[in-house]
Amino acid sequence: MEDVFAFIENNREMYLTWLQEICRLPSVAAQNRGMKETAEMVEKILKELGAETLQVSTSGYPVVYGLFNPDKSKILSFYNHYDVQPEDPIELWDSPPFAAEIRDGRVYARGVADNKGNLMARLAAVHAYQQVRGELPLQVKFIVEGEEEIGSTSLEEFVHQHKELLRADGCIWEFGYKNADGRPQVSLGVKGMCYVELTCRGANTDLHSANAAIIENAAWRLNWALSTLKTPDERIQIEGFYDRVATLSPEDYEALDQMIYSEESMLKNLGLESFLLDLSGLPLKEKLVFQPTCTICGIESGYTGEGTKTVLPSVARAKIDFRLVPNQDPHEILRLLREHLDKHGFSDIEIEAYSLDYPARTEIVNPLTASVRDTCIEVYGMEPTLMPMSPGTGPMYVLCQSIGVPAVSVGVGNFQSNNHAPNENIFVEDYIQGIKHIAAIMEDFAKRDLD
Amino acid sequence: MEDVFAFIENNREMYLTWLQEICRLPSVAAQNRGMKETAEMVEKILKELGAETLQVSTSGYPVVYGLFNPDKSKILSFYNHYDVQPEDPIELWDSPPFAAEIRDGRVYARGVADNKGNLMARLAAVHAYQQVRGELPLQVKFIVEGEEEIGSTSLEEFVHQHKELLRADGCIWEFGYKNADGRPQVSLGVKGMCYVELTCRGANTDLHSANAAIIENAAWRLNWALSTLKTPDERIQIEGFYDRVATLSPEDYEALDQMIYSEESMLKNLGLESFLLDLSGLPLKEKLVFQPTCTICGIESGYTGEGTKTVLPSVARAKIDFRLVPNQDPHEILRLLREHLDKHGFSDIEIEAYSLDYPARTEIVNPLTASVRDTCIEVYGMEPTLMPMSPGTGPMYVLCQSIGVPAVSVGVGNFQSNNHAPNENIFVEDYIQGIKHIAAIMEDFAKRDLD
Repeated sequence: MEDVFAFIENNREMYLTWLQEICRLPSVAAQNRGMKETAEMVEKILKELGAETLQVSTSGYPVVYGLFNPDKSKILSFYNHYDVQPEDPIELWDSPPFAAEIRDGRVYARGVADNKGNLMARLAAVHAYQQVRGELPLQVKFIVEGEEEIGSTSLEEFVHQHKELLRADGCIWEFGYKNADGRPQVSLGVKGMCYVELTCRGANTDLHSANAAIIENAAWRLNWALSTLKTPDERIQIEGFYDRVATLSPEDYEALDQMIYSEESMLKNLGLESFLLDLSGLPLKEKLVFQPTCTICGIESGYTGEGTKTVLPSVARAKIDFRLVPNQDPHEILRLLREHLDKHGFSDIEIEAYSLDYPARTEIVNPLTASVRDTCIEVYGMEPTLMPMSPGTGPMYVLCQSIGVPAVSVGVGNFQSNNHAPNENIFVEDYIQGIKHIAAIMEDFAKRDLD
Repeated sequence: MEDVFAFIENNREMYLTWLQEICRLPSVAAQNRGMKETAEMVEKILKELGAETLQVSTSGYPVVYGLFNPDKSKILSFYNHYDVQPEDPIELWDSPPFAAEIRDGRVYARGVADNKGNLMARLAAVHAYQQVRGELPLQVKFIVEGEEEIGSTSLEEFVHQHKELLRADGCIWEFGYKNADGRPQVSLGVKGMCYVELTCRGANTDLHSANAAIIENAAWRLNWALSTLKTPDERIQIEGFYDRVATLSPEDYEALDQMIYSEESMLKNLGLESFLLDLSGLPLKEKLVFQPTCTICGIESGYTGEGTKTVLPSVARAKIDFRLVPNQDPHEILRLLREHLDKHGFSDIEIEAYSLDYPARTEIVNPLTASVRDTCIEVYGMEPTLMPMSPGTGPMYVLCQSIGVPAVSVGVGNFQSNNHAPNENIFVEDYIQGIKHIAAIMEDFAKRDLD
């Protein structure tokens, strides 16, 4: 692969420019900003690389699809998304979130790690391979959706209608990171998700807080309701919540044991003294990878401006995500949550469900994992660390496992990438290495025996 | 008083214009907007009415002071403030909060009920009385501060330095309301206040919520901390919190018993089925008037925009007001709160104290109350209802009780005035009647025997 790697090195600046250009489009799905332009840019690049393309419309944002070499029988697919998270709190960014500024060896932009850096590295790898070798060594499919950050709402509908577009022998999933000591991390699954917004209402208007002695406070009620969901020991108190959580196999424990997680660097980087419940070692890794969560992602009620306002709030809202593990069912969790609130006297609290994703896993031993691992040694000079499942979430079940496609996550992020947070970034060097890695994976997987 | 009342009626439009003009200045102390202009307008009006005036500078906003007839021995003072609460949530206002629009017989503006309507009614009463009778029947002092809505931070310093300016035989306090069936309500005290902001911090940056399994969530910790402060039975759980709460006297119970509180109208107006804990009758009134509170006035953490963001918040904040009753001490409550949080494992939660006011009461039987009651019958054609103490708060202790001045609250608000809330308003008719009532009180109190 030295010829392809050299070509990539010689075209670093061009590939960086590609990345900056797409990062400058603020494709915030939650707020419907810049979505059309970004989908069009992705399709344009695919076309220029020689793919047959489609923009498949859905009830939400379109899925951009690209197909290379349909006459080759071995198929590798790439799943990515062109949407990004909202950029606020904007005041905490050191450069504008859509400027894609490069400084100190990093590109800073909302979405650069999650996941425009990965999308562009894969497109750049296709470009470099074609330029050097003439054509790709296998059939390649790009599936690039626009709703990953809002729960891939339309993806299930897309999969049901277009199964033939998705058939593949393996899928490289959208994300991947180096861990705190610079070792690439490969993961083989994702957690599921049940994301809800709870709304509690009191009187029909905010009131002077002098009335608080006798009029119900929506913020207090929401606080008490939340307190029934999870206790400070981190145990989720919804009846039946843990019933379907799969027992770990000896292979799972072995994988966890071999998985490298740099506790000290992580804590130092975050300015923390310890992890939750003072965990470390195997129990820490087990909780991170295999335990479900219940997270307050946002809460708001009453006056939150400067100084004081003595107000009795009439409305309180909280956004909660539950991350689910095999074999929890997001629809069942939503039902159990409703029952829990009812049982605790909070029938009046409204639940709006935003996204419901199933958890997904790929078997630890499979040909694509082998390709990713072997080429990792070739490109990075070291074995990757293998996570049996990522603590992140995505529509992997619907897109891969439900149609029998093994999925492996690897990519250009780092443990300080600040996904979903201010100053999101990737290292320029990780991006360039990521392009090489994808090129090498295509070459290796094309030759790999699938049986 | 028919001559003065007739003059007031003939000049309704002019007095309404005065009110609109001052309401159009957005004097939001918490945000330092329009404060200087408003103080200057108040001083200018006082000067034009013939008062000796002062703008007494403090470490915060100045106190505007006006003195009429210094050679008369009987002294009535008026305590008011020229600052207002912030106007948000602005989207819930039906007309701009500083437009002072008149519709359906009401003036709508931030601050019109709390308390520019009262300030202007008192100034208008002085004007009308002087125009008809030549001069006021007694010495009158106006004390108009600019920090009531941010806890009267500088008022204690002002009182210590200017006790002689404040000496009076009685003080008409800043606020007063008609209750739900249109009966004026007179109150004789205020609750105290301990207003704090709690801040809980986790990692040094917001994180992707995939990390929630092992990294502490500031929003959860704040939620659990708040849950230890008050339980759903509305009992405040801070050790020692209730220790100094005064036992009610038989006179207090008699006053409560006679106090009219229109439960049905109140509930209907607020769109509620019941009061807190299903209270009604005497226990409801007792809780409203004589029980302390612990109120979440505002809470904020993480993502609160549209749609979803899967974020693990690094900071969570809550604004809490404790309303205190005799003989609770706000400084002691602040100390007990710190001890409580420490004892429950929340030593890391920061407390910022914004305002600390003592509760205050005036004896039920006194000459100023008698003046206010008798003239109420003259102006409104009915007895007022008497509250031994208002559930509201203000610096009454420091301004009145600490220097031996009896204080009585009466004013132009109504039970739907929406103080501190969107669409704050007063009835035009209540404003005009309020001017008459103040004129009548001056006349009556001037003649009243003080022994």
